[in-house]
Amino acid sequence: MPDSASLGGGSFATTERTRVRRHPERAHYDRETVHAILDAALMCHVGYVIDAKPYVTPTLFWRDSERLYWHGSSASRMLRAQRDGIPVCLTVSHIDGLVLGRCAFRHSLNYRAVMVFGTAAAIEDEREKEAGFNAFIERLYPGRTGVMRPIAAQELKATMLLSMAIEEVSAKIRDDGPLDLETDHTADCWAGVIPIAQRIGEAIGDERVPPRGSREREIGHLAEGARFDDILLSLARRDRP
Amino acid sequence: MPDSASLGGGSFATTERTRVRRHPERAHYDRETVHAILDAALMCHVGYVIDAKPYVTPTLFWRDSERLYWHGSSASRMLRAQRDGIPVCLTVSHIDGLVLGRCAFRHSLNYRAVMVFGTAAAIEDEREKEAGFNAFIERLYPGRTGVMRPIAAQELKATMLLSMAIEEVSAKIRDDGPLDLETDHTADCWAGVIPIAQRIGEAIGDERVPPRGSREREIGHLAEGARFDDILLSLARRDRP
Repeated sequence: MPDSASLGGGSFATTERTRVRRHPERAHYDRETVHAILDAALMCHVGYVIDAKPYVTPTLFWRDSERLYWHGSSASRMLRAQRDGIPVCLTVSHIDGLVLGRCAFRHSLNYRAVMVFGTAAAIEDEREKEAGFNAFIERLYPGRTGVMRPIAAQELKATMLLSMAIEEVSAKIRDDGPLDLETDHTADCWAGVIPIAQRIGEAIGDERVPPRGSREREIGHLAEGARFDDILLSLARRDRP
Repeated sequence: MPDSASLGGGSFATTERTRVRRHPERAHYDRETVHAILDAALMCHVGYVIDAKPYVTPTLFWRDSERLYWHGSSASRMLRAQRDGIPVCLTVSHIDGLVLGRCAFRHSLNYRAVMVFGTAAAIEDEREKEAGFNAFIERLYPGRTGVMRPIAAQELKATMLLSMAIEEVSAKIRDDGPLDLETDHTADCWAGVIPIAQRIGEAIGDERVPPRGSREREIGHLAEGARFDDILLSLARRDRP
């Protein structure tokens, strides 16, 4: 049941499922934080239940307003299970750094994570599907759908588009150094944070040489060495300031 | 039911749950491949069912032979749900690159993923718990437990150690360029792969200056710019050649 005290403004309601019990000071329910963690990611892990057993499938996803989208082969067991409106938990996580404390117990991880609960359903309308897939391409590679042929009917048929509204959601962030006990400060060991980030490598062109100038024009925003989460977030904010 | 034709040697049996239907040529069931994908990761996504609803929690994990371990607060809802031997799906994934094809449908991702099905149970024995937590610290930071005080009784009590045997498992890998149709090669767009990897950043020492020389000695293996998955795999193979 939504907690009405938390409703309103720019925040999601906290519910029995989403209220963070452990380290509640790390919990966030505001739209801005939730959206920023989702938008900085390309991959999520979708959990669903078949015959009372849990399944967790890594898959690409994207957000449009208060809906999340993911896709895959129409032959996929995961997607066939989800098409008829089953409950799913879609989780996104970013590793931001290793935290080394001065005792074993105070080692930790800096991270950003979001758990979204909702009801997945397949989008059957062909035009809506096509628009969804094109939006996903444009989300990563702005302008790209304009230089490619349209999606063929058989390609649309072979691919399923799943979607769900963000019904319940919580975010959790740790972004801090080690939180050591005073009594442990004499330990003879290094303490601090080792940052970790997903970074872009050097692009590898296909064997058939791509058109001259296309690399800079089309993938210039995916520059070698840049943080992938930063790029994804910038791309998302370009369209949704 | 295990497929006996796939049993034996260095491979896991394929089962109804683990047989990869989509792109079976990308599926792997051999121990070496499964272990390498697991060992190159620090974080997994654990799926479990409470009241017929799916939950997916990102958490740190480690492997010891054919068992997987993860831990967390004794107060955690996730861990309390799992302690009594419930079925879980533990999924690990690595994003390795964006694949840009010459039509929307041929865009893809290079990745490595493993889905493990098993039955989670809490390890209650205090000495086994302590050994498990120390093994996890040593897995990331060799020699570190030797310079820190032992784990206190109340810290052991506050932390739960979960474990499961790898009962059923499959790995899936895509590691290729775009697989375009011949008829699409005239498209006026760049095509190829943009690699992505988790990389180490510059270490940030705690405000209280750590002991002189400790940084090189203790975290020299987590060098700035290095791939985190490569480091994790090397660390795992150091102990298990």
